[in-house]
Amino acid sequence: MTSLHWTAGLHHDGSVMYVSNPTPVMGETVTIKLRVPQHVSIHAIFLRTAPDGEGHMEAMRREGEDGVSAWWAGEVRITMPVTSYRFKIMSSEGGYWLNALGSSHADSPDFYDFKLIADFTAPNWVEDAVFYQIFPDRFHNGDPSNDVPPGAWERGGFQTQQREWGAPPLSWHEGGSLDFYGGDLQGIIHKLEYLTDLGINAIFLNPIFKAYSNHRYDIADYHEVDPSLGGNEALAELRRELDKRGMRLILDVTPNHCGSRNIWFTAAQSDLNAPTADYFTFHHHPNDYETWLGHKSLVKLNYRSEGLRDAMYRAPDSVMRRWLHEPYRINGWRLDVANMTARQGSVQLAHKVWRGMRKAVKADNPQVYLFGENFYDGTLHLQGNELDAIMNYQGFTIPLWEWLPGRELPEQFIQEMPWIDRAPLSAEALAEQWTKFRAAIPWVITRQQFNQLGSHDTPRILTILNNDKALLRLGVTLLMTFPGVPCVYYGDEIGMEGGTDPDNRRCMRWDTTSWDTDLRAHYQRLIALRKESPALRRGGFQMVYASGGLLVYLRQSPEQRLLVVGYRGPETLAEVVIPVRHAGIADDIHLTDKLSGIAYDTQMGALHLQNLECGTALILEG
Amino acid sequence: MTSLHWTAGLHHDGSVMYVSNPTPVMGETVTIKLRVPQHVSIHAIFLRTAPDGEGHMEAMRREGEDGVSAWWAGEVRITMPVTSYRFKIMSSEGGYWLNALGSSHADSPDFYDFKLIADFTAPNWVEDAVFYQIFPDRFHNGDPSNDVPPGAWERGGFQTQQREWGAPPLSWHEGGSLDFYGGDLQGIIHKLEYLTDLGINAIFLNPIFKAYSNHRYDIADYHEVDPSLGGNEALAELRRELDKRGMRLILDVTPNHCGSRNIWFTAAQSDLNAPTADYFTFHHHPNDYETWLGHKSLVKLNYRSEGLRDAMYRAPDSVMRRWLHEPYRINGWRLDVANMTARQGSVQLAHKVWRGMRKAVKADNPQVYLFGENFYDGTLHLQGNELDAIMNYQGFTIPLWEWLPGRELPEQFIQEMPWIDRAPLSAEALAEQWTKFRAAIPWVITRQQFNQLGSHDTPRILTILNNDKALLRLGVTLLMTFPGVPCVYYGDEIGMEGGTDPDNRRCMRWDTTSWDTDLRAHYQRLIALRKESPALRRGGFQMVYASGGLLVYLRQSPEQRLLVVGYRGPETLAEVVIPVRHAGIADDIHLTDKLSGIAYDTQMGALHLQNLECGTALILEG
Repeated sequence: MTSLHWTAGLHHDGSVMYVSNPTPVMGETVTIKLRVPQHVSIHAIFLRTAPDGEGHMEAMRREGEDGVSAWWAGEVRITMPVTSYRFKIMSSEGGYWLNALGSSHADSPDFYDFKLIADFTAPNWVEDAVFYQIFPDRFHNGDPSNDVPPGAWERGGFQTQQREWGAPPLSWHEGGSLDFYGGDLQGIIHKLEYLTDLGINAIFLNPIFKAYSNHRYDIADYHEVDPSLGGNEALAELRRELDKRGMRLILDVTPNHCGSRNIWFTAAQSDLNAPTADYFTFHHHPNDYETWLGHKSLVKLNYRSEGLRDAMYRAPDSVMRRWLHEPYRINGWRLDVANMTARQGSVQLAHKVWRGMRKAVKADNPQVYLFGENFYDGTLHLQGNELDAIMNYQGFTIPLWEWLPGRELPEQFIQEMPWIDRAPLSAEALAEQWTKFRAAIPWVITRQQFNQLGSHDTPRILTILNNDKALLRLGVTLLMTFPGVPCVYYGDEIGMEGGTDPDNRRCMRWDTTSWDTDLRAHYQRLIALRKESPALRRGGFQMVYASGGLLVYLRQSPEQRLLVVGYRGPETLAEVVIPVRHAGIADDIHLTDKLSGIAYDTQMGALHLQNLECGTALILEG
Repeated sequence: MTSLHWTAGLHHDGSVMYVSNPTPVMGETVTIKLRVPQHVSIHAIFLRTAPDGEGHMEAMRREGEDGVSAWWAGEVRITMPVTSYRFKIMSSEGGYWLNALGSSHADSPDFYDFKLIADFTAPNWVEDAVFYQIFPDRFHNGDPSNDVPPGAWERGGFQTQQREWGAPPLSWHEGGSLDFYGGDLQGIIHKLEYLTDLGINAIFLNPIFKAYSNHRYDIADYHEVDPSLGGNEALAELRRELDKRGMRLILDVTPNHCGSRNIWFTAAQSDLNAPTADYFTFHHHPNDYETWLGHKSLVKLNYRSEGLRDAMYRAPDSVMRRWLHEPYRINGWRLDVANMTARQGSVQLAHKVWRGMRKAVKADNPQVYLFGENFYDGTLHLQGNELDAIMNYQGFTIPLWEWLPGRELPEQFIQEMPWIDRAPLSAEALAEQWTKFRAAIPWVITRQQFNQLGSHDTPRILTILNNDKALLRLGVTLLMTFPGVPCVYYGDEIGMEGGTDPDNRRCMRWDTTSWDTDLRAHYQRLIALRKESPALRRGGFQMVYASGGLLVYLRQSPEQRLLVVGYRGPETLAEVVIPVRHAGIADDIHLTDKLSGIAYDTQMGALHLQNLECGTALILEG
């Protein structure tokens, strides 16, 4: 079990222990380091770059050793917007290439190379943030006077209805997304102390713009906060209250489509000469138009239109810029359906639109955080010149859902998604998937990925875990220790359950007697731990061990070294030997679990653990 | 040895056995097939696409079986310029994703997905071509009257000199690339019968435009064939002679740089207001300018210049279009230093320039073949809208050089390239590298890749192989049976040797007594075999087995099934059992070697071979 091949000990990532400056300017020379097992016979290592496409092999120098690892260093001059690099390690067993995916005797395309971006400004508050996602209608009703009255409007045979706080949300077939509970921005303001007590310092709100459904993804006016949420003035007040607490605010915008009652669209429907007419694709004016996935109430926006690009992000008073300004000063945007935005069959404008959007909003404020919804592969939009992040479903959440339960998924999910494995994923496969999605993007971008255990679009994590609280605690530990930025979906921390939409959007429970206070304390503790840990916020990452139900990874910064151990079962493990020398950890190192205070010593290149129970999570420092 | 995991039997490629139409038009529905081992319990297979970025899982249907394999089929509608797809196979062992790289429980970014390109026109003569590369000064002197006289000009302290045919080329330090042997286009015309006798039907000429060196990469006038090669009229005559024989012609152009005596550049040096001044980057006019890798005689072209784009490829009389027209009608371009073209540090215009160039030349003639020099990763330029091909160094040649010798490389190469393994690569690593570079590009593009065993820029293959003719014959067999289009470097077929430049550019030997006629007969035979084989020209490809010195792959079309076996040693293998059932091959199949006529029967899912000697190559049909 401890006889890993020595190449497992080759390690590089984009953190400051390995890259002298992860955000270099054009023309700068950066020192790149590689950690290798000290006692392996290596006669040369080359740092391979390709300036302007021509391969260059730079001989590295051996710079030091600590008994376990030797460090090699070399320089690379930043001359291009993106500098890809990999290593070639010459050993007595032949040459090994090392890229962000791992080592191989075979050479590879550059796709999985390590990457440095020139002149990149990260919104650097993001890695210190712990987010909380709120579905506004369901968090807290702070002002009943602005509630949507029953029968205020109708759509598709349904009328708006007021529901009692805590009553189960109505399915689309029962309520047409017109069941309202009265949650609003005043409600969020009232509960800010609750959030700061939990440790939250940034909130992400699902849509708050004027719309005609409880989810408000059918935006009617991008320039008006919904009156039933308190209107623009409530948003300004929320901003003031957040400022008092040093909290950040992210709003949710849908650049892919708008509602069919949107003022741009109704103008276009009434008059093909309206300035907004080319924001849309009319197959036959006015009622046959391009929709989002066939929903007539959700109208696809057409980015061939220069006017739309101006209105959405380019003009100073455009949607995406005006809310960055006083008195709202939001700190970023979550971009709904980012995966499909500006894509319409033969017209594929996504790269152009994201580049333009980034340029426009970052000119107003380079600290704005732009992250997109993407359940699939967003890596090509995460190369430094488009999005800062995506909701990291493929690179974190989805494989975790498949691994963590340790048993067959609930039948409901299998029926809805027959392509999901019934059997749990192995830690090997989980690690492989995490690695592939991480390896495809530059490290400075990895640090900003938006990680969640679930969202308004997915079943709640506790339901996926069949209400197993020990596994949930393990999941929370992974969320708070994984590279990227964590976000808690409202109510998960008190033990709320919920299946697919709209069951995942139940009302927040404010009756504290209904809370799982142990669980909430675990969230509090992990959030606090993350916020005070340089290794978790800015450290590098090495997957150390992955086997069946057991997962071990290293987070390390110059100040701190943490080894995260997670075991999801299914049975208690009487004894396990985890190789750690390839993570640069010597023998006789005292590793102390930050959760339990229990200490362990490394021996013979390994960490020996006994009686690992399902849901065990250790955060070992030392 | 025969107990491969059943997932090795999952196979798909882009050939017509698996894709109903590999070159669909926009809007077309294509049927996709997957071959799976028949006796494995598979309860569902999904075909995964992502129209406009939204994942879609299409259930496939089981369509038939043949005792060994079962076939599953599903449809995909082509709605985007590039359609990526992969499979998810639901088995009792869990779900396996399958992309062009292979199968895994873990999901992946789309990079290695299978890909279909809409509205793609391949130059379809290419896959029927067998190319021959000629370095013009060194092939045959057909007209001594046009030879460059001694002392015609000088450069860098050297003067032009006439060398005797067959004398060793002078190194740069001895002759400054000004040693000329008198080869010319008339010489090529005189030897066309030699080429057709060999089976060649397409020639690729190193530069023939007016220049001031023997390699002519320092082009002085892109619109004039060098007088010492016979001038424009000789090219027109060559075209006429090629037409008589149904042969194609590729010229070599350097879009990355020109010579410092180029008429565009001398005009720009004399006058900063010259129309060509912005074709170049002057740091300080006139003598401090951007060069190619520091060579003052090679001036980097600046693609920020719209004028340069017009002059090079956009205008009807541009360099790259005018030679497509009468009376020259060349069939394509080899693009020198394509990896660096239109790339200058912060200004990276390569994708834009290749797209523009493709559009311009294909508008004149969609059958034009555009392939670039690229020793590194060209895959991002091989997605259907830029280059048709590159010189396939990474995806074919380089790993073959590292595998085929079966022993340590000559010391000379190690000293020049210390990052090359001394020890031979294993077949596993060879197969892995081939697979990765192939998997990164659409299959219709794979079919057009330009494969060589060596070129004017590399040592000759026979020298790399330390003059081992058996290994060379194996190399030739692989060249002629590998996906893509083969090209013979002049003289390799008669057993010419040569180290690095300029030793690899020795004069062609026309004294037939000096030829290795057995070797030439092997080339002839393999070329003929390829030209008559539908499987080799248009069939799919499956890597069947790779272990140490042994390599086995399948080429299959609806008409023909071939199993190529190559063994490079180092020792004779007394007995080897090659699993073939996962390649869809049943037991008791009679496989006949097209080279020796010897037949073998498959048994117990495998092919049993005895006494495999170093250099063994079989092409088994059945």
